[in-house]
Amino acid sequence: MSSGKVIVYGGKGALGSAILEFFKKNGYTVLNIDLSANDHADSNILVDASKNWVEQEQSILEQAASSLQGAQVDGVFCVAGGWAGGSASSKDFVKNADLMIKQSVWSSAIAAKLATTHLKPGGLLQLTGAAAATGPTPSMIGYGMAKAAVHHLTASLAEKDSGLPENSSVLTILPVTLDTEMNRNWTPLSFISENLLKWTTESSSRPSSGALLKIVTANGESTITPQ
Amino acid sequence: MSSGKVIVYGGKGALGSAILEFFKKNGYTVLNIDLSANDHADSNILVDASKNWVEQEQSILEQAASSLQGAQVDGVFCVAGGWAGGSASSKDFVKNADLMIKQSVWSSAIAAKLATTHLKPGGLLQLTGAAAATGPTPSMIGYGMAKAAVHHLTASLAEKDSGLPENSSVLTILPVTLDTEMNRNWTPLSFISENLLKWTTESSSRPSSGALLKIVTANGESTITPQ
Repeated sequence: MSSGKVIVYGGKGALGSAILEFFKKNGYTVLNIDLSANDHADSNILVDASKNWVEQEQSILEQAASSLQGAQVDGVFCVAGGWAGGSASSKDFVKNADLMIKQSVWSSAIAAKLATTHLKPGGLLQLTGAAAATGPTPSMIGYGMAKAAVHHLTASLAEKDSGLPENSSVLTILPVTLDTEMNRNWTPLSFISENLLKWTTESSSRPSSGALLKIVTANGESTITPQ
Repeated sequence: MSSGKVIVYGGKGALGSAILEFFKKNGYTVLNIDLSANDHADSNILVDASKNWVEQEQSILEQAASSLQGAQVDGVFCVAGGWAGGSASSKDFVKNADLMIKQSVWSSAIAAKLATTHLKPGGLLQLTGAAAATGPTPSMIGYGMAKAAVHHLTASLAEKDSGLPENSSVLTILPVTLDTEMNRNWTPLSFISENLLKWTTESSSRPSSGALLKIVTANGESTITPQ
């Protein structure tokens, strides 16, 4: 069994729970960061959504330092996020844009900060973007802006002197759900968990650092395509 | 003299003041939105930086409705913004990213919302991006994320059903200051003001809606290049 350690930010959500339990099954110690605890995690850091970004960062960094006691982690995976729509004329345009930035940008930036502090050299930081946001999103403008910011964060982190440890990688998954009447295809959560484990353990299996990875499932087959 | 009206968001800053005074000189009624009043403006809406995004939006929308009394404007220009650097390992990474999102994304989104309510059909919304953020920005990650969000907002607003009025345009300027020891080139503020006036009055002179317009000055010549 591995004695590896990983951090899952959003480890109480559907995808986060699947990743957390998969890494546990594979011998990893897992630290969950979320609004509520995941009982399968070895330890939990609770996020107080009423706090501002800097307060959340400080609280999470302090608790992570206390929980890890100087140990380094093999991976930091951020699958926190949400969805809300609206064009610019929607009554809730700004309200929803605010929520999207909090859910996606705040969590991704704090995950990046955790990686600069606790990730091993050669480790993996994974963020979550959106395939839709690689183009305009007029009917969900706040969501698109927030995910575009995460995509830009990914590109910056992949550069030299971004603050990430030496030889580490940042990979951002862009899950796509093709939800049509005729052809309802969902990407199995296990497909993402298995790829994350492979990328964590075999750095040679990783796509280039900074990649935005579109994940599409059709006819029961899931594929990963760098954008 | 024209009897046109424009809104300048950030009309107390250096570029905003230049634009505001230039439009005044050309016969426009100008509404300034900023942290403090500009005495050259016909009216001022003060932004309370201690309020959150939704509170700022509500306050600005209420004051704009009261100030405009149903009148429509020819242009909404957003030149609010700022700059702060830092890689992901910088002590102030999250603090500065927060400031950049507040200064650039909050103001741009509220300007877009104002345009959905008060801009004439065929009017002009102008936002401010950053040439640097068309690529990775490892030494100023928060700034790059915020400006990438503004670029994405631009792309979304240029699409059908974005909420902007019919035949209106959204143009985002990307000012570049080439500040080298040998060749110190600054783009004159008048160059931007003059182009804004031309685009406001002659819609046929506008670049395509959704354009990101890099503005470079070299050897005393300023040029605008769509990215």
